[in-house]
Amino acid sequence: MDHTISIAAQNFVRVRQQTEALARGLSDADATVQSMPDASPVKWHLAHTSWFFEEFMLVPAYGEAVRFHPKYAYLFNSYYDSVGARHARPMRGMLTRPSLAEISAYRAAVDARMGDLLEERPGAAQTLLALGLAHEQQHQELLLTDILHLFAQNPLHPALPAAETQSAPNIGAAPLKWRTYSGGRFDIGHTGDGFAFDSEGPRHAVLVGDFALAQRAVTCGEWLEFMQAGGYEKPEYWLSDGFHVAQNEGWCAPLYWQEAGAAWQTMTLQGLQSVNPDAPVCHISFYEAEAYARWAGARLPTEQEWEIAAQGEEMNGHFADRSRFHPAPQSDPGQTYLYGDVWEWTASPFMPYPGFKAAKGAVGEYNGKFMSGQMVLRGGSCATPAQHMRASYRNFFHPDKRWQFSGLRLAKDL
Amino acid sequence: MDHTISIAAQNFVRVRQQTEALARGLSDADATVQSMPDASPVKWHLAHTSWFFEEFMLVPAYGEAVRFHPKYAYLFNSYYDSVGARHARPMRGMLTRPSLAEISAYRAAVDARMGDLLEERPGAAQTLLALGLAHEQQHQELLLTDILHLFAQNPLHPALPAAETQSAPNIGAAPLKWRTYSGGRFDIGHTGDGFAFDSEGPRHAVLVGDFALAQRAVTCGEWLEFMQAGGYEKPEYWLSDGFHVAQNEGWCAPLYWQEAGAAWQTMTLQGLQSVNPDAPVCHISFYEAEAYARWAGARLPTEQEWEIAAQGEEMNGHFADRSRFHPAPQSDPGQTYLYGDVWEWTASPFMPYPGFKAAKGAVGEYNGKFMSGQMVLRGGSCATPAQHMRASYRNFFHPDKRWQFSGLRLAKDL
Amino acid sequence: MDHTISIAAQNFVRVRQQTEALARGLSDADATVQSMPDASPVKWHLAHTSWFFEEFMLVPAYGEAVRFHPKYAYLFNSYYDSVGARHARPMRGMLTRPSLAEISAYRAAVDARMGDLLEERPGAAQTLLALGLAHEQQHQELLLTDILHLFAQNPLHPALPAAETQSAPNIGAAPLKWRTYSGGRFDIGHTGDGFAFDSEGPRHAVLVGDFALAQRAVTCGEWLEFMQAGGYEKPEYWLSDGFHVAQNEGWCAPLYWQEAGAAWQTMTLQGLQSVNPDAPVCHISFYEAEAYARWAGARLPTEQEWEIAAQGEEMNGHFADRSRFHPAPQSDPGQTYLYGDVWEWTASPFMPYPGFKAAKGAVGEYNGKFMSGQMVLRGGSCATPAQHMRASYRNFFHPDKRWQFSGLRLAKDL
Amino acid sequence: MDHTISIAAQNFVRVRQQTEALARGLSDADATVQSMPDASPVKWHLAHTSWFFEEFMLVPAYGEAVRFHPKYAYLFNSYYDSVGARHARPMRGMLTRPSLAEISAYRAAVDARMGDLLEERPGAAQTLLALGLAHEQQHQELLLTDILHLFAQNPLHPALPAAETQSAPNIGAAPLKWRTYSGGRFDIGHTGDGFAFDSEGPRHAVLVGDFALAQRAVTCGEWLEFMQAGGYEKPEYWLSDGFHVAQNEGWCAPLYWQEAGAAWQTMTLQGLQSVNPDAPVCHISFYEAEAYARWAGARLPTEQEWEIAAQGEEMNGHFADRSRFHPAPQSDPGQTYLYGDVWEWTASPFMPYPGFKAAKGAVGEYNGKFMSGQMVLRGGSCATPAQHMRASYRNFFHPDKRWQFSGLRLAKDL
Repeated sequence: MDHTISIAAQNFVRVRQQTEALARGLSDADATVQSMPDASPVKWHLAHTSWFFEEFMLVPAYGEAVRFHPKYAYLFNSYYDSVGARHARPMRGMLTRPSLAEISAYRAAVDARMGDLLEERPGAAQTLLALGLAHEQQHQELLLTDILHLFAQNPLHPALPAAETQSAPNIGAAPLKWRTYSGGRFDIGHTGDGFAFDSEGPRHAVLVGDFALAQRAVTCGEWLEFMQAGGYEKPEYWLSDGFHVAQNEGWCAPLYWQEAGAAWQTMTLQGLQSVNPDAPVCHISFYEAEAYARWAGARLPTEQEWEIAAQGEEMNGHFADRSRFHPAPQSDPGQTYLYGDVWEWTASPFMPYPGFKAAKGAVGEYNGKFMSGQMVLRGGSCATPAQHMRASYRNFFHPDKRWQFSGLRLAKDL
Repeated sequence: MDHTISIAAQNFVRVRQQTEALARGLSDADATVQSMPDASPVKWHLAHTSWFFEEFMLVPAYGEAVRFHPKYAYLFNSYYDSVGARHARPMRGMLTRPSLAEISAYRAAVDARMGDLLEERPGAAQTLLALGLAHEQQHQELLLTDILHLFAQNPLHPALPAAETQSAPNIGAAPLKWRTYSGGRFDIGHTGDGFAFDSEGPRHAVLVGDFALAQRAVTCGEWLEFMQAGGYEKPEYWLSDGFHVAQNEGWCAPLYWQEAGAAWQTMTLQGLQSVNPDAPVCHISFYEAEAYARWAGARLPTEQEWEIAAQGEEMNGHFADRSRFHPAPQSDPGQTYLYGDVWEWTASPFMPYPGFKAAKGAVGEYNGKFMSGQMVLRGGSCATPAQHMRASYRNFFHPDKRWQFSGLRLAKDL
Repeated sequence: MDHTISIAAQNFVRVRQQTEALARGLSDADATVQSMPDASPVKWHLAHTSWFFEEFMLVPAYGEAVRFHPKYAYLFNSYYDSVGARHARPMRGMLTRPSLAEISAYRAAVDARMGDLLEERPGAAQTLLALGLAHEQQHQELLLTDILHLFAQNPLHPALPAAETQSAPNIGAAPLKWRTYSGGRFDIGHTGDGFAFDSEGPRHAVLVGDFALAQRAVTCGEWLEFMQAGGYEKPEYWLSDGFHVAQNEGWCAPLYWQEAGAAWQTMTLQGLQSVNPDAPVCHISFYEAEAYARWAGARLPTEQEWEIAAQGEEMNGHFADRSRFHPAPQSDPGQTYLYGDVWEWTASPFMPYPGFKAAKGAVGEYNGKFMSGQMVLRGGSCATPAQHMRASYRNFFHPDKRWQFSGLRLAKDL
Repeated sequence: MDHTISIAAQNFVRVRQQTEALARGLSDADATVQSMPDASPVKWHLAHTSWFFEEFMLVPAYGEAVRFHPKYAYLFNSYYDSVGARHARPMRGMLTRPSLAEISAYRAAVDARMGDLLEERPGAAQTLLALGLAHEQQHQELLLTDILHLFAQNPLHPALPAAETQSAPNIGAAPLKWRTYSGGRFDIGHTGDGFAFDSEGPRHAVLVGDFALAQRAVTCGEWLEFMQAGGYEKPEYWLSDGFHVAQNEGWCAPLYWQEAGAAWQTMTLQGLQSVNPDAPVCHISFYEAEAYARWAGARLPTEQEWEIAAQGEEMNGHFADRSRFHPAPQSDPGQTYLYGDVWEWTASPFMPYPGFKAAKGAVGEYNGKFMSGQMVLRGGSCATPAQHMRASYRNFFHPDKRWQFSGLRLAKDL
């Protein structure tokens, strides 16, 4: 028992520190500004993840008096309607107070209290603890995507202090090969070992036909060919809704790309960089991914196909732990690169698995109420903590969103 | 062969006349105005369906000279990008010219030429002919939904001249019963007999668990209970996107409902009527249907479940042929009422079946490019021609749309 | 007394018939569609002007029973808040019913009752009668500007049936000359003889410096020079708000102009026509007029300067009575052309004259509540009834509006 | 000569230090966030005012090499089109870098160089220097209005560190008295002594009738009566455009007012405070001021009337120098309170005086291009530096703006 406690507490401390490590070196201003309604300030991520533990673990254990500040529940609740009123999402960037230092103090206070709790009641609330840490890891990635979006608005092109200053070595991409999979009846979804989000279950059987997956993600060089072939201008490659968005928003390249004479540059967490044609293309929407696949005479994989292919694979991808926060060339012809570098858009809408039921209470709002109008992405990215990933993991975003580290892998029927 | 020709030609004449019968008695002004970007003017429906035959059958057979007017291809193309430029959708209501009389002449000219073609080349283009007629039947329903939307904006509450003046008899709704179905492996999709749209295939196997369906659609009386229980105000019943839309648009009842003292009235194609608590609720969005189901402790059926239930059923519902154009009480406890009255929102996004490939050329734009962000509805409505319906038929709309004759049926796991 | 009555009644009949003459030959559909929120359907103009007499003269005289239809007051009130609720302006185009024929019957009924009233009570309400007729003449011009806007949306370029089919003779424009005026103290505003709108008074003294006015309006040929000089792209010529609008709306030529190879065409009530370089430029906003004047090293006249110049002039311009409804070249070097052809934007905001007080009651809403954010135009246009014009007349529109027959005349200090 | 230099240099240092004093104690985050497109971040005000001296005085004197940073001209130009491209206004809040410390260094560097310049070339560019300092004083007030708007978005209600912590003493308002002025011919505009903005001239004669002005501004208590009389709901008090805005924006009280049980509170730079019924009402738009005046049976003064009344007055109002930054009760029945506390909306659009000509070059963009759609305010406020004010001063904002310290004084004809 003592041992279990210790691991839980160690895990808690480790995840919390990882979050703070990402924010290290950011100024109060960097941590405060909200660059668009979809994004949140760094300070908000730091506070909201702490509020989660306060609200769902500390208050139930110690009562309302445990709260660090009477208004923080209002300010740092994200979307849990059943917990009470909350500060409007697009106004998160107005909170120049509390300061970054005050939020750090909030984190420290929550950490201390959580340390007490984990020591005093080691067996309690293991599920909530695991959920809170997985939740915090999600926000680690969002912290990165959101600060990148902010820095990309700045003509001075700041780099993230926490980012490795060296780019990935330029070692070429593996040639595009197809890996084939026989169809049949498969079980899909979380197996029940270890933590998973509610949306990853119930595990259930599906029927799948024979299919093939590309052995690596589509590269920037391949994407440039799509652009040169008029990919962004020709409606025949696009879903109708997608082409409408692309025209309205004036899309002509992935997000963050900008022309520099004859070449292309892209904003990254390492600052403004040349586009590396061998690296996986990144910061594209589902609509663009889907159009590319049609142009290439292929299609996107379903999330079932992706999970079938991933179930036997080792999870040795390029994750946030490497601190590069930008995809690197996938050069080894012997690997599948299903994990890491870029989230891979699938052809699957984010819908409940058969028999899915949301949990009771606020925690039940976790995923279920977002099961509409969003598409599943799989595999994690260069901004995802490695420990956070697994074969059954379902990420999801609306099909027009581009600010995540999102790319694609081609699939086809056999 | 002669016989085949004759049937095809008769069928053509019959469908074309049905369209005109719906528009009978409308004024030039009624047929011209566009009440919102989603809707089209009656005149446009009359012209566009004729353009379809001209563009895809007459011009290939007889050349460009066969065209009735040099600008009609531009004015009456809907969304076929590969056919050329077209008049912007939200501007369809600006076309006070050509007049309704000119469009009638256009229809007559196309009909005459089509008669020639069907006589001269009886075996040719049977698939395109069937597609053109199915397309026209789709527009028959849209003509009805769109003119209802227009008339609902008019404080004078006009009725459709073609509508039956008698309301449905008030005979009570059957009590809500659950009909159970055993799960297993089922084949889904069009069987290959008769016409079907591309999206109804390929036929393929699916796995489904045990489930139950309500024996009839949800009634207006039941919907009033949802409203009285605060259904429109409580976020816990709603998908996040749905609640956002409901709040922004100020939804507090189905579309077309309006309070009249203590009671509710609703606009119909028979004019303004009292809401009949025994009739199926109609003109609700997917979001509302989904929220109702959660409030009721149930869920929406998947389109697979619906089709499994429907495969053994006779198709004897209440369709447009009855000319009431408003759902009627489903009173017989021995029936399933899967067909007719109201389109039933399902839990299924409109996505390609495994192995789906769009046809080459303009006709290939038919359904594939809309497979994003829309939800499947099943079963047809009081505004659907009976001959148009079948078990594999997949209708689809965005989840916030309410102006179709859309309702819901509850489902649950066993 | 008899004689006076007779003149009033004759005048009434004449003005009412002029309105109907403008609408002659329009279809029910032409008369129903609203092409933008700023514009109203022809049918609405026909009905609203009748409602004015019904509401303000017939109901006070004969009581509520005199109303033609119980809902018409709701449908055809424009903006008189104190008279009661009204149909929302952007929804005017939804009213396919009542039909044009019903509105004609409404007009006839109002005309008959008004005939009775003018006979029975000859001395009564002369001011209201004059206001009602002036109001109707305003709507005659709006009817023309609004139907032109509608027809300009139609790729078939319909002409107004009531328009003269011959264009103006192409006789060249007079060379640009400056006419000088000595400054001093002048009286401005309506003198009290004959009808005037409330905003034309009180007559009051103003101080004006020496100034010069161009002898004719700016021509299309001169405007083309402005365009070729980059007038629409260079912010230095523009008011800040104006340049913002021009960029947002993509302005690069006057409204209704379209390129036809190397030349320009413009939509008119006579259909699509070549731009005549000698004719006054038309359908420009205040912002464009002001930018042109700055580019030309001049300025717009104030409304006081315009009125001082106009006080001694005969009013023999090119008005709607000529049925061309498009400005014609101003070729005579001996004329000032202050009246007719195009409304001339002035440098003056539409503000109350010193001592202005709105009348009590609904009629007091006539002009006062619009005295904010609009600019004064002077002189009348080719769409204004000649009888409607006078030196003190103040027309006004927001500075970004372009669908009126609006042009400009240059001014400068001496 | 030496003496002159010394005064100029001392003046420069004093104004620059006043700006920094206002920002003292603000965090980097406070100084970075932009709360709406109309407002700018404090950091931006600090930098932009420095850029003005760098661009218009240092670069002409010392060449391009004098620039502190190559991108600051791009980042901190406000609207001077002729000076070059600039960072989009609504994106000013994205600039988390440069930091507040870097901007302070920028200010110090500009100050040092300006010190050199003022010493080396004492007689040079006195006009530009005066303009630069007047410009900086304008931004001192904007800095205050903009940080108040930001803090008002924060549920923690922060106070400005630089603000006096004591509220104004609650000493009652003077009773409303009318002060009468005889009409006649008056000279208006800057007399030529001392600095003035271009828009304050040329001085010119105007004719004005007899009039009366209230002896003090309208109070919060009087405003509450207007609210209780349904002032915000009754269209008869409002300009048409104004009522439209009020309804769309949901106005029911001045900006920053919020209900606290039966009472009202208002956000100020001293934090959240009770509304003092004796203090002048503040943070109202022109539309509200104009509606109030109509409700009160009065009108707003014209800017000519205001200036005539002010010409004989001492300028001893309550200005920013008092550091309260919130209007205080005007209690002395012997004073006119024309200066200070609140800017007073006038009935006059901001238009060029007769003979006005913008200066050549970038400085000529100062006021002229804003002479459209804005209304004049007079007298300065509790956020205006006293030294900045004079009788001829014309402030101007669009009629729907509320975030300035704007109130009103009643006027009437005699």
